[in-house]
Amino acid sequence: MNPETHLAAQAAENLKKVRETRPLVHNITNYVVMNFTANILLAAGASPVMAHAENEVEEMVSFARALVLNIGTLDDAWIASMVKAGKKASALGVPVILDPVGAGATKLRTEAAKRLLAETRVSIVRGNASEILALGGAAAKIRGVDSADSVDAAAERAVGLARELGVPVAITGAVDFITDGKRVVRVANGHPLMGCVTGTGCGATAIVGAFAGVDADPVSAAATALAYYGLAGEHAADGAAGPGSFMVRFLDALHALTLEEVRHGCRIQAG
Amino acid sequence: MNPETHLAAQAAENLKKVRETRPLVHNITNYVVMNFTANILLAAGASPVMAHAENEVEEMVSFARALVLNIGTLDDAWIASMVKAGKKASALGVPVILDPVGAGATKLRTEAAKRLLAETRVSIVRGNASEILALGGAAAKIRGVDSADSVDAAAERAVGLARELGVPVAITGAVDFITDGKRVVRVANGHPLMGCVTGTGCGATAIVGAFAGVDADPVSAAATALAYYGLAGEHAADGAAGPGSFMVRFLDALHALTLEEVRHGCRIQAG
Amino acid sequence: MNPETHLAAQAAENLKKVRETRPLVHNITNYVVMNFTANILLAAGASPVMAHAENEVEEMVSFARALVLNIGTLDDAWIASMVKAGKKASALGVPVILDPVGAGATKLRTEAAKRLLAETRVSIVRGNASEILALGGAAAKIRGVDSADSVDAAAERAVGLARELGVPVAITGAVDFITDGKRVVRVANGHPLMGCVTGTGCGATAIVGAFAGVDADPVSAAATALAYYGLAGEHAADGAAGPGSFMVRFLDALHALTLEEVRHGCRIQAG
Repeated sequence: MNPETHLAAQAAENLKKVRETRPLVHNITNYVVMNFTANILLAAGASPVMAHAENEVEEMVSFARALVLNIGTLDDAWIASMVKAGKKASALGVPVILDPVGAGATKLRTEAAKRLLAETRVSIVRGNASEILALGGAAAKIRGVDSADSVDAAAERAVGLARELGVPVAITGAVDFITDGKRVVRVANGHPLMGCVTGTGCGATAIVGAFAGVDADPVSAAATALAYYGLAGEHAADGAAGPGSFMVRFLDALHALTLEEVRHGCRIQAG
Repeated sequence: MNPETHLAAQAAENLKKVRETRPLVHNITNYVVMNFTANILLAAGASPVMAHAENEVEEMVSFARALVLNIGTLDDAWIASMVKAGKKASALGVPVILDPVGAGATKLRTEAAKRLLAETRVSIVRGNASEILALGGAAAKIRGVDSADSVDAAAERAVGLARELGVPVAITGAVDFITDGKRVVRVANGHPLMGCVTGTGCGATAIVGAFAGVDADPVSAAATALAYYGLAGEHAADGAAGPGSFMVRFLDALHALTLEEVRHGCRIQAG
Repeated sequence: MNPETHLAAQAAENLKKVRETRPLVHNITNYVVMNFTANILLAAGASPVMAHAENEVEEMVSFARALVLNIGTLDDAWIASMVKAGKKASALGVPVILDPVGAGATKLRTEAAKRLLAETRVSIVRGNASEILALGGAAAKIRGVDSADSVDAAAERAVGLARELGVPVAITGAVDFITDGKRVVRVANGHPLMGCVTGTGCGATAIVGAFAGVDADPVSAAATALAYYGLAGEHAADGAAGPGSFMVRFLDALHALTLEEVRHGCRIQAG
């Protein structure tokens, strides 16, 4: 079996495990996407919980199979809770997935992302090209929270960043790029309509969390999660009249995709 | 008229009153479901308002016909506002509906729910089986915010809890169970797809609030609200391709259900 | 070209600019509508960002083409951030659009709206009739956040308010009314189903922000934005089975409307 076929089979296997074991994914995420993220996780078969109070997060994360930290609408109190939850997750071996929304756009966001990388044991960083460039110290073409850089422009920097921090990095875009500094995997699934709906990036991070809850290899977890997620986007776009109907069909597709469809539809390329 | 027919007729009557009088329902609820809850209330004909600031809630609740307190994403400041709003509502005779999301999962949630029960005059508690078991002091199979217990397993405890606290309890699940410690009512409406969408439980609590705003008998208000709500779920599921299209059709159904459909479709069993 | 035709052509022109330049719209808005607002802006072609931390808003607004302040779920910390962001936007010449959700309903909201009008240079206030009456010092029939007053009842007061404050005012309702105290424009686009979905008013304010980012005349920006927005509502309502399918079709229509459809469908009447 060549590596591509292997990873597509692994995507189906991971989805099967998510649906069977319903991993609890603890999210400390932004206000904009909380509802959509919870519905994405439920549609995929995972069990989402949102909890952000500093005096609750350690207890909550101790039941979780993954912790998703997303800095999309943060303030100092939320950063403190993220650090606390992240440290507890690190101590317990619960995978921590970081979504550095808007890193590079403001100092608060860039520093919060860097602090989380420094103080907790992040398993996977999932961002767009501009965010990853910003974390890598490059001058990104940041504009709010939308990327103005291409995945290719950020790929080399991502490899360096992954090596330097020892943290696997996943950049999403037209073709997703996943690396742990040594291995490199590309995922060709997805559809442009995903960029017309808020929270599709944040939802991708959450699904990476769910898959990380059932797959101990972060590169494989991220790549298979993004392939399944992008494949659902392709199915959803087929027949959608715009972003509204796309969102609806996307949740339907995440729920309805069969393991056979995942096995044959995921386009994951190693190397 | 037997009790079942009576309660189905009462469901239609309550819905008619909600649509005619558009009761203002003040919600202090969690970030995840605020949008969906507001849309559910609007679709049913009620008028939702969300307000959580400690220096605003007393004024806001004084215009309201019901106060819905939901602890799904709480912290200390929100608990303080809930207590303040709940006390004011109690003093004014505005029914207080409590949704103890995740009670039993963390100490913060269990204690917040118990504090609200102790310090305000709650009219109805609406939760899943695990949450009600946790409030009743039993060891619930809590896992985040999803119930791992059956309604039957919690029914006996719910009767005891309702008696002990003097607060009617509604447990939702495959068959909903409502009791004030003396009377027992079961509602057979609903559909499994409701469990695949976040906030359907929270939305049920909000609709119980709207119905409590027009029906002074809490057991009747809760049972008729849950029957109407579950019936909308049944209509929505018919033709839905998954959770996304279900959500859309659910809001449509809450809005479109006729009083005649409610009168004939509600399956409420007393005793 | 008569004024009506001119403004409809301007609506198409503004939409074209939004789609081509993707203006960054910085929103400090309420929890209930954050997701829907972001999706509305994306569907129209703008680039939304939500950021509320006091130590971030000045930096974020400096990249923005418009700042939308919405007091739908506020507390003291959020008011402080709104004031800070509004002052910075005023200094930079970034248009500030104010949505006084629930002004008149509680003292906190009325005073917050008045404070924002006093301390920042607001370009346009967009509210419902009751909110505008309340800001104008009249006794509005406020009930939560839904208007109980007609646009006509508030029109005269709006002209006086616009003159007194030097701030253009847009009242939305069956027929929208826009004035800067001298000019008066009415927009007849829209559909009653818009009142059955939470956040359609807030979304209108956000679209006014996007248009204000590409059109320096606030009356023209508000009128053309509301006409385009209402036209999308008309298209969405055609075939909708209720509020759920309306929401979906509304996002689709905002995205799909052609410039030709906007030019011919906008019903904007000057004078």
